Amino acid sequence: MCRWLAYSGSPIKLEELLVKRDRSLIDQSLHARQGATTTNGDGFGVGWYEEGEPPRVYRSTHPAWNDRNLRELAAGVSSPLFFAHIRASTGTAIQETNTHPFRYANWLWMHNGLIREFSRLKRELVLAVDDSLYASIEGTTDSETMFFLALTFGLESDPVGSVERMVGFIEETGRMHGVEHPLQMTVATTRGDAVWAFRYSSEGDSRSLYFSTRMDTLKALYPETDELAGLSDETRVVVSEPLGDLPGVWNEVPESHVGIVQAGADELRPFTPRSL
Amino acid sequence: MCRWLAYSGSPIKLEELLVKRDRSLIDQSLHARQGATTTNGDGFGVGWYEEGEPPRVYRSTHPAWNDRNLRELAAGVSSPLFFAHIRASTGTAIQETNTHPFRYANWLWMHNGLIREFSRLKRELVLAVDDSLYASIEGTTDSETMFFLALTFGLESDPVGSVERMVGFIEETGRMHGVEHPLQMTVATTRGDAVWAFRYSSEGDSRSLYFSTRMDTLKALYPETDELAGLSDETRVVVSEPLGDLPGVWNEVPESHVGIVQAGADELRPFTPRSL
Amino acid sequence: MCRWLAYSGSPIKLEELLVKRDRSLIDQSLHARQGATTTNGDGFGVGWYEEGEPPRVYRSTHPAWNDRNLRELAAGVSSPLFFAHIRASTGTAIQETNTHPFRYANWLWMHNGLIREFSRLKRELVLAVDDSLYASIEGTTDSETMFFLALTFGLESDPVGSVERMVGFIEETGRMHGVEHPLQMTVATTRGDAVWAFRYSSEGDSRSLYFSTRMDTLKALYPETDELAGLSDETRVVVSEPLGDLPGVWNEVPESHVGIVQAGADELRPFTPRSL
Amino acid sequence: MCRWLAYSGSPIKLEELLVKRDRSLIDQSLHARQGATTTNGDGFGVGWYEEGEPPRVYRSTHPAWNDRNLRELAAGVSSPLFFAHIRASTGTAIQETNTHPFRYANWLWMHNGLIREFSRLKRELVLAVDDSLYASIEGTTDSETMFFLALTFGLESDPVGSVERMVGFIEETGRMHGVEHPLQMTVATTRGDAVWAFRYSSEGDSRSLYFSTRMDTLKALYPETDELAGLSDETRVVVSEPLGDLPGVWNEVPESHVGIVQAGADELRPFTPRSL
Repeated sequence: MCRWLAYSGSPIKLEELLVKRDRSLIDQSLHARQGATTTNGDGFGVGWYEEGEPPRVYRSTHPAWNDRNLRELAAGVSSPLFFAHIRASTGTAIQETNTHPFRYANWLWMHNGLIREFSRLKRELVLAVDDSLYASIEGTTDSETMFFLALTFGLESDPVGSVERMVGFIEETGRMHGVEHPLQMTVATTRGDAVWAFRYSSEGDSRSLYFSTRMDTLKALYPETDELAGLSDETRVVVSEPLGDLPGVWNEVPESHVGIVQAGADELRPFTPRSL
Repeated sequence: MCRWLAYSGSPIKLEELLVKRDRSLIDQSLHARQGATTTNGDGFGVGWYEEGEPPRVYRSTHPAWNDRNLRELAAGVSSPLFFAHIRASTGTAIQETNTHPFRYANWLWMHNGLIREFSRLKRELVLAVDDSLYASIEGTTDSETMFFLALTFGLESDPVGSVERMVGFIEETGRMHGVEHPLQMTVATTRGDAVWAFRYSSEGDSRSLYFSTRMDTLKALYPETDELAGLSDETRVVVSEPLGDLPGVWNEVPESHVGIVQAGADELRPFTPRSL
Repeated sequence: MCRWLAYSGSPIKLEELLVKRDRSLIDQSLHARQGATTTNGDGFGVGWYEEGEPPRVYRSTHPAWNDRNLRELAAGVSSPLFFAHIRASTGTAIQETNTHPFRYANWLWMHNGLIREFSRLKRELVLAVDDSLYASIEGTTDSETMFFLALTFGLESDPVGSVERMVGFIEETGRMHGVEHPLQMTVATTRGDAVWAFRYSSEGDSRSLYFSTRMDTLKALYPETDELAGLSDETRVVVSEPLGDLPGVWNEVPESHVGIVQAGADELRPFTPRSL
Repeated sequence: MCRWLAYSGSPIKLEELLVKRDRSLIDQSLHARQGATTTNGDGFGVGWYEEGEPPRVYRSTHPAWNDRNLRELAAGVSSPLFFAHIRASTGTAIQETNTHPFRYANWLWMHNGLIREFSRLKRELVLAVDDSLYASIEGTTDSETMFFLALTFGLESDPVGSVERMVGFIEETGRMHGVEHPLQMTVATTRGDAVWAFRYSSEGDSRSLYFSTRMDTLKALYPETDELAGLSDETRVVVSEPLGDLPGVWNEVPESHVGIVQAGADELRPFTPRSL
């Protein structure tokens, strides 16, 4: 099982959430607790935005915990919006092009979960990707296929609707091939402003997904915690598993919901797969 | 441009043709002369057969010349039939799954050349791969697509005919999309006994391909050369560019021909693309 | 903490002990139980002997469980004597030259444990390496330093005595620098015939080390187990942690002892550090 | 032979000098002309400074031209002072710890050239490294040894003098061991403000080294060239080989000289090895 983290808010150094001990994603990659597999050593990726720039992506097939370049990068780069993902392969090859986050134009996408019996469904799913997008598929994973299906179904103009259509299409395709529960996912996607985070599975028993509590609430709870002081009240972290041990920090996203972190009030809405 | 070598004959250590200085494939990878690009540093692969075993493949994304594991392997493994390939990417990602030789069941396949405007043609070509084979595609190259098309068109029962159909199909598809000269190739394939080596290009100006002269002829020419003494008269080497400087060793395969190295007399036949 | 395995006996494919599920070293590297660290993902190495050849070494910085080349190699190579090691770095860089087994001439060496405060002691220890050996040191680990000290102190002619002197020297050096318990080790070394396996630590509380029971005993215990049938009665496996679940297979080497697997009767002797 | 580049001046994106075609260091790494070896594919490194931060280093063992992460980084990072180095190994292992630039505290160091018969001299040279610095040596190259000798001899307070002592010491040591011309080097070092660039060899026939002409001169020569317009007049590039084809851009550093790029007037001084 993979793990991921999405950050949106006051610019911070990536290392704050990726590297520092006892509460970072890298620390989690060595000592997984809630994950289905015990280790996330099959590569990792980081995608980040800086003022007025397209997103940058750094991806590696080495375990995150022993990659020195990642530590340099995480110490050197500050960003108001970044994604990070550590991978435990469910079978596809360990290579950079299979490593999340995936990028298309200004969008990033990352996924924890799987399409069940993907090798049987793959051809039909990939065929549904729009002709103009097809050549941009670089890897061989179910996760990237989901991204390109969502793009095909309108991600850029209707993020929630397109993901609902993507899920609906995968479930229909899977069931036509006799797959009982075709999809398991927590997904995050962004175009550099808002972040959409989805929790859904065909069996109604999805992997975990958490939003951080609003910073003003956290600051009231922990007035003495310096690290929180500089963060804007709108700062939010979305994670597949909670980081660190502070009580009151994490709110679980309910089954079959999508959370939207955005300027103004965040949203939490039911998520319902749709037919095309 | 890539470079490759196919060996068939008396078992020898791989290092004889891959590693040793001044006449090996690795030496060529550093000092390319006839190639379209000046360096072949984008990975390499070796595939070999041993008695009664399926073929093994070792592939790496590092330059062949600085890979210590390759030297160990090449010193330790003897084989009567092996393929080796050094890659200069024409654009697709540098990853093991894009590295030749490709393998399916008992077959190996390697290619030097390209499908022109592959990103525009890819979808249509991949769609023609048989459903039962589709899930075995691991990478994203034109070369692997050619292999799976040949398999779809009957490689296992009719090697020459299937490659003729594969080329015919790619040329038709390319021309429908306005690509004047869709294909450039030298290809080698084997199932562990015979080796088929093809030289063809849509423009009738193909990259080079050479067969070694029969060993009995070579031994007559160079009676004092110890390295030749132990090799059976049927031993043959097929290469994209000549290795070493011995005159009389290499015979160029003519344009639009296929050579077959096999038990009994070898063959050299015209190669003509066919419609499906 | 690292893990390792030494095999001596009837030639078998490396994959039998390295790759196959539920009882292999690779499986252990994902699901460590007795280890001090929870994952061994910082590279691995295999060293093996074949008839009349110097030892070959394959080493990689990727996790053993996701290295395809290792699977190919382990399926293709049979050997009567091989070492395998999976690494969890205690701080030195993740690079092939820091990966076990280390090789010098016909000798292999691998280690689980550490020299405590190695960065403070390193200079003095490395200085004691014989001038003729110094240039052969390729990496930066405590483990390789131990190997070259043992070589300096006579490993090739007196394996047990030289390791006793190596340990004595490290303990003296450490204590002069105020390190209370300078050394923790299980070590295996071989020159292709016998295998020496040491269990020792300055604090008298060493990491685990196990020998397999003699095969004739195992065959009597498990007459129906096909995998044991073909193995000679002298076949032995030495491991840092037991593999698999068969009861009666593993005998723990006692604290401060060295076991010697050799032609004729194996030996188990007390191990006592010596002054130079 | 390696190649390197040092930039100091108006902040620019690293990709301007590292990635862009026909005039970049990466382009050079594929198509070496003045180098002793024909290809620089044995890894590369980049070190850069940003306002108020210690230097960051990104190093990889892959060829620079096919490293996607380098392209991302070079597009995302702007810096007023950076070093870049592409390596062609003269024998030591291909690993990140052997890749330039080397870093110690706020200093970076990179080198093109070699210590001749380094394996014979290494022990004596490394022994001279100050005890407090010894544990910071991470790799095994002659280049890093030179850096730590310079640090030992006072690099941080007297850059030119310390390098003169380092060179004097290596020459004395080499000659005692019968090495006629112990050292060949172009070296750049910096602590984030000035850049020191040395050209020296024991045989008085050093590898090339070039400084760019002052920008005000270049702007007068090429008033229509947009890329120069935004650069401060003090901006300078130092390179082992000229980049691009603009005439009048490059001034060769004379044999046995050191150039200093700094605030105020740059300097060019004779360089003379000194005894300790």
